[in-house]
Amino acid sequence: MALVESSINLEVGKVNPDLQKERDGASFNPNDMTLVLLGGPKRAQHRREVVRQLFSDPVFNQEMRYSQSKTERYDQAMHQSIRLAEYMIEKGWTDKEMQTAAVALHYDLATAVHAVMFVPTILRLATPEQQAEWLPQAASFKMIGTYAQTELGHGTNLKALETTATYDRSSECFIMNTPLPSGMKWWPGGLGKSTTHALVTANLIVDGQSHGFQVFLVQLRDVETFEELPGIEVGDIGPRISVSVTDNGYLIMRNVKIPRNNMLSKYCTVTSEGKFLRQEGTAKSNYGTMMMVRASIVDLAFQNTSQAVTIATRYGAVRRQSELKPGAKEPQIIDFVTQQYKLIPNIALAYGLHFTKEYMLSYYHQVFEEEIQKGVYDSVPELHSQSCGLKAYCTDLSMDTVEVCRRSCGGHGFMMASGLCSLLMDGLGSVTYEGENTVLYLQTARFLMKNYAAAMQGGRTARSLAFLTANHPTCELLDVFNLPQLQAVFDVRAKFMLECGAVRMSESLKNGRQQYEAWNENSVELVRASKAYLDSFTAVNFMKRVSTLDIKPELKDVLMKLCRLHALHRIVSSAEEFLQSMAINTKQLEDIRSAEIKLLASLRPDAVALVDSFDYHDQTLNSALGRYDGNVYEKMYDLTKRNPMNEQSVHPAIHKYLKPFQAKARL
Amino acid sequence: MALVESSINLEVGKVNPDLQKERDGASFNPNDMTLVLLGGPKRAQHRREVVRQLFSDPVFNQEMRYSQSKTERYDQAMHQSIRLAEYMIEKGWTDKEMQTAAVALHYDLATAVHAVMFVPTILRLATPEQQAEWLPQAASFKMIGTYAQTELGHGTNLKALETTATYDRSSECFIMNTPLPSGMKWWPGGLGKSTTHALVTANLIVDGQSHGFQVFLVQLRDVETFEELPGIEVGDIGPRISVSVTDNGYLIMRNVKIPRNNMLSKYCTVTSEGKFLRQEGTAKSNYGTMMMVRASIVDLAFQNTSQAVTIATRYGAVRRQSELKPGAKEPQIIDFVTQQYKLIPNIALAYGLHFTKEYMLSYYHQVFEEEIQKGVYDSVPELHSQSCGLKAYCTDLSMDTVEVCRRSCGGHGFMMASGLCSLLMDGLGSVTYEGENTVLYLQTARFLMKNYAAAMQGGRTARSLAFLTANHPTCELLDVFNLPQLQAVFDVRAKFMLECGAVRMSESLKNGRQQYEAWNENSVELVRASKAYLDSFTAVNFMKRVSTLDIKPELKDVLMKLCRLHALHRIVSSAEEFLQSMAINTKQLEDIRSAEIKLLASLRPDAVALVDSFDYHDQTLNSALGRYDGNVYEKMYDLTKRNPMNEQSVHPAIHKYLKPFQAKARL
Ligand SMILES: Cc1cc2nc3c(=O)[nH]c(=O)nc-3n(C[C@H](O)[C@H](O)[C@H](O)COP(=O)(O)OP(=O)(O)OC[C@H]3O[C@@H](n4cnc5c(N)ncnc54)[C@H](O)[C@@H]3O)c2cc1C
Ligand SMILES: Cc1cc2nc3c(=O)[nH]c(=O)nc-3n(C[C@H](O)[C@H](O)[C@H](O)COP(=O)(O)OP(=O)(O)OC[C@H]3O[C@@H](n4cnc5c(N)ncnc54)[C@H](O)[C@@H]3O)c2cc1C
Repeated sequence: MALVESSINLEVGKVNPDLQKERDGASFNPNDMTLVLLGGPKRAQHRREVVRQLFSDPVFNQEMRYSQSKTERYDQAMHQSIRLAEYMIEKGWTDKEMQTAAVALHYDLATAVHAVMFVPTILRLATPEQQAEWLPQAASFKMIGTYAQTELGHGTNLKALETTATYDRSSECFIMNTPLPSGMKWWPGGLGKSTTHALVTANLIVDGQSHGFQVFLVQLRDVETFEELPGIEVGDIGPRISVSVTDNGYLIMRNVKIPRNNMLSKYCTVTSEGKFLRQEGTAKSNYGTMMMVRASIVDLAFQNTSQAVTIATRYGAVRRQSELKPGAKEPQIIDFVTQQYKLIPNIALAYGLHFTKEYMLSYYHQVFEEEIQKGVYDSVPELHSQSCGLKAYCTDLSMDTVEVCRRSCGGHGFMMASGLCSLLMDGLGSVTYEGENTVLYLQTARFLMKNYAAAMQGGRTARSLAFLTANHPTCELLDVFNLPQLQAVFDVRAKFMLECGAVRMSESLKNGRQQYEAWNENSVELVRASKAYLDSFTAVNFMKRVSTLDIKPELKDVLMKLCRLHALHRIVSSAEEFLQSMAINTKQLEDIRSAEIKLLASLRPDAVALVDSFDYHDQTLNSALGRYDGNVYEKMYDLTKRNPMNEQSVHPAIHKYLKPFQAKARL
Repeated sequence: MALVESSINLEVGKVNPDLQKERDGASFNPNDMTLVLLGGPKRAQHRREVVRQLFSDPVFNQEMRYSQSKTERYDQAMHQSIRLAEYMIEKGWTDKEMQTAAVALHYDLATAVHAVMFVPTILRLATPEQQAEWLPQAASFKMIGTYAQTELGHGTNLKALETTATYDRSSECFIMNTPLPSGMKWWPGGLGKSTTHALVTANLIVDGQSHGFQVFLVQLRDVETFEELPGIEVGDIGPRISVSVTDNGYLIMRNVKIPRNNMLSKYCTVTSEGKFLRQEGTAKSNYGTMMMVRASIVDLAFQNTSQAVTIATRYGAVRRQSELKPGAKEPQIIDFVTQQYKLIPNIALAYGLHFTKEYMLSYYHQVFEEEIQKGVYDSVPELHSQSCGLKAYCTDLSMDTVEVCRRSCGGHGFMMASGLCSLLMDGLGSVTYEGENTVLYLQTARFLMKNYAAAMQGGRTARSLAFLTANHPTCELLDVFNLPQLQAVFDVRAKFMLECGAVRMSESLKNGRQQYEAWNENSVELVRASKAYLDSFTAVNFMKRVSTLDIKPELKDVLMKLCRLHALHRIVSSAEEFLQSMAINTKQLEDIRSAEIKLLASLRPDAVALVDSFDYHDQTLNSALGRYDGNVYEKMYDLTKRNPMNEQSVHPAIHKYLKPFQAKARL
């Protein structure tokens, strides 16, 4: 075992020689790149220490996760939750450290929603008195909670949720009810087995009159025995491909009485006499959390993408297959250009997403922690629209990447032990939760159409749409590697796509359609316009950020190649839009394709170093194919021998079905 | 319960009114369409009877499959295998009927490879004497076999397989050995637990000299006790996303002796003195099976696509969500144009794949059952290339469709009970097994480049490449619904793409690259050329087949719409190639996009009838979302209550981890 100080993987066995060769041949030191990605040596070191500590504890060893039963996986998720809570007490881990740990564990925790949604919502919507009562219980896990919003019948359209909370003046209670079947709460994380309480979104009714949706704290289980309380029915919603480790649940309430004080009352209250009172300022604050969550999903998209390319690239260096040069030794599969085309543009994407999530998180902080404090709300619409749009765009691309990487591993990409299957299945949730992606693209489109109209009338646009009013010199791509020229190409295309959307809308309206009909009729085009805007925004952001980095020349060099490759690859991926907008012509498209292939060749020697730089711990990847030491086949065999299906040589089904059949057949 | 004679689902409860409304409003009778798809009333009726009989037997009820453990699923797979074997004996089911049943069960059988590969290989490669000895045992399940080819280290490159069979003259035996770790057999279906024997591909060595790969019958387990024989190590390879029901396995042989007679000897033998003899005609016959298997995977791609759109379209009619017209009732989600765009072009694709697989299977039969009998081998290269290419192209598209359909169901698309998750995961295998898709596209490209060169030299081309030499009038798309014009557009684009590939190849060679370097350097373009050819071929085949159908006008009408939509959608999907080749201009591309949206509106009222026409049994779909009766939410709740995670109200993990923590925290 060698000690690798500059990697998160402290102890590494003998490294596969093909992988070692890649590391020896790289043009830069991955540790240097890691420091750039993580914001300096102090942060990098701190992250490494937290993660190494975590994984030195056998409780967090998930090696057998893939062959665990549902109930075993849940058992471990609860164990991990409790162990982390102990770390908080015993090691004094901070929120930041807890988060680093949770990310390293892919949030496979039974109490994730308690930390991420339950407590923050109380902080946001409860009165100081309510907080004083509930938060200490939440901190000691006497009260474990979830946030129950989605119902069987409604996720996207929150206005149509069906759960009711009817005020009963005589008892000064709310009576909670679930209209069946579509009103039952369905999906909330931890609701099935782990929580004593839920914050329930319900339609408030007083004297037969609805006052819209409010949030109520409902006790589900006895805090001592954990048995369900009367009128409550909760359970796990059943097998699913995402969030399969924990206990997303359903909830039915049948005339459940909760005290009047259990309505979260920072902004709205019901007096004991049944008077509904509303304070100022409700909406904005809810809004902020939603944006924060979406911004953090952009980070998740980066994690998923970078982990997938790490696994597939290392495997691509270790796997030897087929013939390249006649008569020569089998090549590493990464030497096939088609294989490079699967991997290297996706490595570039991973780096691009790194800079996108940095942008997203910092813009969020700028708006919510600086501007809004000073009463400046100008950026909110853009932030909202970008957090919707980038959540959708980045998760879509990240999941495409994960699947391309998985397939690039051939047959072994189908083994759970590849680590790629769970990245895919768990990651897929991100395209649907916190706003289904089509719905989000259409949100962004509304913002774009508004800005386009403003720009056409000579008005001001949001910052990211400055290109709508800028006086572009006729864009001419003389050099496919020239960043300003590339940026102009992206701008021209984005502007064109917005224009298409706007023109179609106005044509539909001219043809007598109502606004909503015109919107629906053109929604496919409007989604395309959103994607074009987001595509341009991320490519340009990547180019700008890399251009201004003040780092070692060899790092800058390789990052410049990556942002160029990303730009070219995005052009090729929607080439028809670039052609239609005349941002490029067909000859230039040909040049771009050739340039792309040349960039592959030039980045090929750095492929492994580029993924090593993401500095993932082997236990986070949990992949036999993507191990740091490259000992792939040995690990696969090792895991297989420990697979529960192999505990008995002869499976009982043989004696149960085959033997009696053979006996009969012999007669 | 109503009796629905014209559907495969005999007994149907009260139908969801939104779904009923769709059925009432269709322009044609789905039963009529079913008869067209299945080749007439007799065949349709027979299929219905077999499937209904199957599913009236509780052994084949897979409703709880999604929450079964691995070992329970395997138990059921073995039970189903044995039950089907009993049907063969008791009900006299023929091969055809067995196959209908297997397809309806998604081949979730422990002995699938026994029937599909083991027996056919013996028929193909064993001598009459060997057949006489082995086939009766195989028929009575005394011998259950698999076909063991792929190894841990090699799937694609069969030439590099490592398993050895060394002839030992003294004992007149072969000694089988597995070089570890990469030589172990890995992946063969049924190898883990279900089989007594395997046909093992191994490198034959006599007197230190290799004679290439031969196939050997190796006994793995005692046929009575099912215990592993000495020197044999077999087991399940471990958790995976595809073929997760059965027991794909690994095999290690350590000096395992098998009799000389166990080498399959129709074409090659080793005499007792150790002389290796080869007869004529080996290669071609192996070839045929491979083509047959790939052709049948094109059928599988059709099944997966049509099942996915059936589920998602029915759910799209049942699910009501969001706001369309302000103030009105929530719309059925299928009324959103973005939703139609997810579903209806994929319904068109499903129909297109139906005609593609019909083509593929009939071409296979024409070549192997007519031409080759007469000594005509001319079509073999084209058939080979198309079976490679269409396998890759159709499985790629089908898996895209399954995932689009799954996502189109929002959150509930993540529930295993949707039926879409298993369609995805099991279906994905098809892009990798029987030839990894990239490798297959490159196979097709070789054929294309050869034909292109021939055409340029004024020579003859294969039938499907006639457009290379045809004298096309300058193609002009005056009417985007005109089939001959559309066909010309596809031909121009395909020809252009082949030309691009050829030109790039010759440029690379001119620049001094060796042939293999030029090929690799341009492989990304060559894959694109293959896809363009296959895309054109299937779109044109769809148009041609529909044009010549002699059927009721209302059926013809809707099929014409579908094949137009398919053609337009394929143009939009690779629009840059059509633009580059000048098959269309940018104005026409705009028209095509508009026409596509119009076709969606015109097909919208028939969407449900179009998927009903595929006539899938509810138990084949195994989907709460895609049920024939549309009672989605009720079924989801019903399944959830029976989910094993809900057997106990309080999960043991609470007492194991949470309670002790709380107790400690209180101190
Ligand atoms: C893994 C996972 C974890 C989850 N965890 C939680 C949780 O912890 N707590 C919780 O409360 N919820 C949770 N959810 C639920 C999740 O928030 C919803 O599923 C999500 O918001 C999508 O809503 P839906 O399911 O209603 O989709 P639907 O709205 O039903 O979407 C179905 C289809 O309709 C289309 N559609 C809907 N509206 C429109 C429109 N206006 N315009 C065009 N098309 C439209 C969509 O594009 C989609 O194709 C989770 C979901 C998943 C998958
Ligand atoms: C679900 C499933 C079931 C299976 N069942 C069986 C079974 O019953 N029996 C059996 O014997 N096997 C089975 N297999 C194995 C299967 O046949 C192989 O996995 C498949 O042939 C792919 O080979 P591979 O795994 O070696 O991929 P690899 O060749 O290792 O592919 C990895 C990557 O290398 C690339 N690559 C490889 N060669 C080239 C080349 N020449 N040019 C360009 N790129 C290249 C590929 O494109 C891919 O991206 C099964 C596999 C799966 C997934």
